[in-house]
Amino acid sequence: MSTSSHNSNNTSPSPIINESNQRRCAACKYLRKRCSRDCVLSPYFPASLPHRFACVHKIFGASNVARTLQQLPVHQRAQAAEAMSAEAYWRVQDPVYGSVGVINLLQQHIYMNQRELARTRAHIAIHSPTRGPCSPWAGLWTSPI
Amino acid sequence: MSTSSHNSNNTSPSPIINESNQRRCAACKYLRKRCSRDCVLSPYFPASLPHRFACVHKIFGASNVARTLQQLPVHQRAQAAEAMSAEAYWRVQDPVYGSVGVINLLQQHIYMNQRELARTRAHIAIHSPTRGPCSPWAGLWTSPI
Repeated sequence: MSTSSHNSNNTSPSPIINESNQRRCAACKYLRKRCSRDCVLSPYFPASLPHRFACVHKIFGASNVARTLQQLPVHQRAQAAEAMSAEAYWRVQDPVYGSVGVINLLQQHIYMNQRELARTRAHIAIHSPTRGPCSPWAGLWTSPI
Repeated sequence: MSTSSHNSNNTSPSPIINESNQRRCAACKYLRKRCSRDCVLSPYFPASLPHRFACVHKIFGASNVARTLQQLPVHQRAQAAEAMSAEAYWRVQDPVYGSVGVINLLQQHIYMNQRELARTRAHIAIHSPTRGPCSPWAGLWTSPI
């Protein structure tokens, strides 16, 4: 995503355009811009993944994504681009809840797991033959986890 | 978020401005626009919650939020605005992972719960005095949950 042009030794117009197109990242291709070597989106939105950028652009807008990445240290940008792509994908799939829908599902999963754990522990407490400190169940209630 | 103006019976300039300001939603106030009665953002971003809109605007952009809401049926807009506000808040708090960071935490929580459940079940399997179909533990492994 940049307005700067690429240099080429080839003087015929067509090959220059083709070479430029081949180099362009998905963002610059989508926005019909030339892609400079220092394009901030290029490393994270390659031409091979056009839908990934289309999603992110639709939800956040290209300039917001570029700004977010620019404000981060280089070593954190790939994770941020990955996370924004996931969020954008979820919101395209579910325009009402987006990633909050995924969070709600996981919270339900946790609730069901905890209920199952409580049920299992209740069975142990009821049916345990001995409940003293020497019981084989001693320590199960004080899990370090 | 609208350019249409409010009507008022008051003819002095100052009260009109004050009345308009009082009526403006957080979005129109932030964007320094007049707020019409059919403003799509007004019901979900009241003037009393200025930070909520500021977050959403920073992450998604006001026009993207307005477009998303307009494309949804009216009865789903409040949930969508709520979800977008939560996502925006998480991304402001954690510019690298945003809501994906929350999802990662919940997944760790699920993993730990499942490990604890497996540990508890393993203890039962080892220490159970009887393991036949009449055992008090029978049925624990085939939970409907």
